[in-house]
Amino acid sequence: MTAYAKLRARFERIAIINEASAMLGWDASAMMPPGGGAARGDQLAVLAGLAHGLLTEDAAAEELAAARAGDDAWSQANLQLMRHAHLRATSLPADLVEAQSRANSACEKIWRRARQESDFKSVLPYLDNVVKLTREAASCLAPRLGLSAYDALMDGYQRGVGAVDVAPVFAAYEKFLRENLAEIEARQASKPPPLRPAGPFPADVQEALCRKFSALVGLDYNHARLDRSAHPFCGGTPTDVRITTRYDEADFTGALLGVLHETGHAMYERHLPAPWARQPVGEAAGMAIHESQSLIIEMQACRRDSFLRFLAPELRAAFGGDPAFAPENLGLLWRRVKRGFIRVDADEVTYPAHVILRFRLEQALISGDLALADLPGAWNEALFGLLGITPGNDAEGCLQDIHWYDGAFGYFPSYTLGAMAAAQLMQAARAEEPGIDAGLERGDLGVLGGWLDRKIHKRASLRGFNELLREATGEALSVAPFEAHLRGRYLG
Amino acid sequence: MTAYAKLRARFERIAIINEASAMLGWDASAMMPPGGGAARGDQLAVLAGLAHGLLTEDAAAEELAAARAGDDAWSQANLQLMRHAHLRATSLPADLVEAQSRANSACEKIWRRARQESDFKSVLPYLDNVVKLTREAASCLAPRLGLSAYDALMDGYQRGVGAVDVAPVFAAYEKFLRENLAEIEARQASKPPPLRPAGPFPADVQEALCRKFSALVGLDYNHARLDRSAHPFCGGTPTDVRITTRYDEADFTGALLGVLHETGHAMYERHLPAPWARQPVGEAAGMAIHESQSLIIEMQACRRDSFLRFLAPELRAAFGGDPAFAPENLGLLWRRVKRGFIRVDADEVTYPAHVILRFRLEQALISGDLALADLPGAWNEALFGLLGITPGNDAEGCLQDIHWYDGAFGYFPSYTLGAMAAAQLMQAARAEEPGIDAGLERGDLGVLGGWLDRKIHKRASLRGFNELLREATGEALSVAPFEAHLRGRYLG
Repeated sequence: MTAYAKLRARFERIAIINEASAMLGWDASAMMPPGGGAARGDQLAVLAGLAHGLLTEDAAAEELAAARAGDDAWSQANLQLMRHAHLRATSLPADLVEAQSRANSACEKIWRRARQESDFKSVLPYLDNVVKLTREAASCLAPRLGLSAYDALMDGYQRGVGAVDVAPVFAAYEKFLRENLAEIEARQASKPPPLRPAGPFPADVQEALCRKFSALVGLDYNHARLDRSAHPFCGGTPTDVRITTRYDEADFTGALLGVLHETGHAMYERHLPAPWARQPVGEAAGMAIHESQSLIIEMQACRRDSFLRFLAPELRAAFGGDPAFAPENLGLLWRRVKRGFIRVDADEVTYPAHVILRFRLEQALISGDLALADLPGAWNEALFGLLGITPGNDAEGCLQDIHWYDGAFGYFPSYTLGAMAAAQLMQAARAEEPGIDAGLERGDLGVLGGWLDRKIHKRASLRGFNELLREATGEALSVAPFEAHLRGRYLG
Repeated sequence: MTAYAKLRARFERIAIINEASAMLGWDASAMMPPGGGAARGDQLAVLAGLAHGLLTEDAAAEELAAARAGDDAWSQANLQLMRHAHLRATSLPADLVEAQSRANSACEKIWRRARQESDFKSVLPYLDNVVKLTREAASCLAPRLGLSAYDALMDGYQRGVGAVDVAPVFAAYEKFLRENLAEIEARQASKPPPLRPAGPFPADVQEALCRKFSALVGLDYNHARLDRSAHPFCGGTPTDVRITTRYDEADFTGALLGVLHETGHAMYERHLPAPWARQPVGEAAGMAIHESQSLIIEMQACRRDSFLRFLAPELRAAFGGDPAFAPENLGLLWRRVKRGFIRVDADEVTYPAHVILRFRLEQALISGDLALADLPGAWNEALFGLLGITPGNDAEGCLQDIHWYDGAFGYFPSYTLGAMAAAQLMQAARAEEPGIDAGLERGDLGVLGGWLDRKIHKRASLRGFNELLREATGEALSVAPFEAHLRGRYLG
């Protein structure tokens, strides 16, 4: 058995352990009774430790030193990704990883109450510890990866893209917003306000509709489940993908569009190349690309006029003949732009502002340019600069998101990189496949899905972020298609 | 860290891995879409391999050689059970374990069709392989454990009881049957036939009733779930126990009594002593004791007249005022004795005959006294000898149960040992706790539950099978309480 073959077996074993963790993580959010939490934490920690052990034990380093992959690009990329994973895992001392895990858990727990009570001061010492340890981790990773400290953190979520790539597209988008947001709002104000469909919308009818539409996008329920959880997500494994949502009987929008979003994620996992399953090169290319796959379904395809014309009679059949179900009204309703304080409630035009704010502040926190005690003020100032609004309290400001309080720094850019990539991919797909819009008119996402399958899903991690985009669309990440999309939709 | 402390940490880690497997096993039966099966098999195999590796690696043997437990009985029993687990695990060569796993899977798969088509010949070569490998495993285990080959297999399901304990109680029960079954049937025939409640019984109403009654028995849904699966079972872990059932809208009996049965199992897991969680001595004492806990709830408590009087108005409230819900009628209906071919459908009087038959035949198969090709004939002959009936085909005969075809030899006795132990425990509990019956009249199982908690659940694996029974009831396993129970219920 060659060293590379041994590595393949090793990474397969690691992937299988991670599959078990993924299923247990899904269960914890979708099924587990509260009393199971403590034991589940132990189970996930032991499995993480076992996977980490397989990745970092001496034999792995020996195999990596001796390994020669085949001549094909897939094997070579696979070996390179193995080295990368090994490098990341061995760069962090075990006691630092443990300290981070404890600090993140402790901070996240305090944050839940701090957010409720809008009390930033109460969580400040915990967040301070999280940031301190995150900086320490970043400074361990950075020299080994040849990246800046912040980029070393970003690399953990989306390989192959760093602050130097992100900053200019974000700056360009800030300019776009400054030049266009008022006009978008003015145009919207000149139209009649959208009608809101009158509920209630029974949860089981919503669920049946969500199931039908996710299947329409292509999700095969022989390899998938749809369940309920407090926060919608896509989990599980490529052959057994688990999506969740929650049902508000007063408004079905969140569940339906949320399921379409998660279905986009699910299709990516389902379509990853089976011959490379459980190998690093066979995994999804990163969080930003993943987000592009959910947003191209939810935002690019399903909120498009053509699809809304297909959707309207389906809604009438499910919920009765409310005039709010007219396709034009659905467009007004589901493409409404409104500056607000909360990222997760934001429309696609203002959402990037929330991300830009976080991207800038987290860089400053990691570099030390921003003291934590100054975060609330810096947040409010930055939001005012971007959107001209100021939150009434920190719960609507720097306490709103779990990410930092759980130790996730460098993740936020993925949301907007994903939105931009989705627009870029949709533009390229429509240019290459003229049948896409006609398909959407009749609820057929097959042509778009096939294009994504070939250009993104089946490429898995063969290429880095920008190279993947370049091969799919002819260019690296660009803000232009996203802006063109918004101009077409909101200023056309 | 002492060697014993290291062992405690080692067995805790093994137990946590096994918890993960238990949850994934539950998911596979209750949640998983069919397409997830292949990956799940890999996940369970890898986790089993990791647990096995921790149990059998050199360091474990070194720790066991050096370990001294504390003076207390719990620590001493714990260390002894560690040695026992290690001995069993290291007695089987890895390639034999793998070959068994493959042979069992292959045979079980063929068996599913063979049973459908009542075609024993088609599965014969596969079962032959299973039996051959089982005998090989038994012959590896037997000398190391100081047991006979068959007892070494039984030991895998219920430690501390062997054929020499089982054979005389089974022989005594056979005599009881010969002397009393016809009389039981005659008495039953002299009464009016029971009325059958007229359905349909909506599955969601049944489910709510099952949930209510399991909670009444004591199941805390902060630490439990009730779901649906093709074959009801109790799985999960002590702080997160998962019971399942299936709903037949034409007859709620199976679901309701099945859930009460599984709740008995669940209460045992929930009440195991927390300070010994994840240690061998803190586990349930074996399959026969486990079955005694389900049967004491389902058969001894919930089919008793006192409880049926409580249950009747609950059924009327759930399903309407069917005259079949009169307590006397429920007694006739749910304590009906009828000789039949199928073990899982058998009443409590004739059920042991099915087990006695299997106990005798599987001993003969393992010893080689019975050739596999002669199994169908031997089966039919034995059933005729015990119950005076002959199945029309092998699907109703030697093909009906999965156990042997999946490599489980030595398991069947647990069912009847459990039924006998349940009667023995109930007799002792009622003698010590006069409030039990009055409690059942008002649907209160707390007094019985408290007694079981003290005498069985909180004792976990501190004692072997007979010692546990002796400390709880004053004597080792005896058939007399079971016969007395049946006399009282069917000949009183």
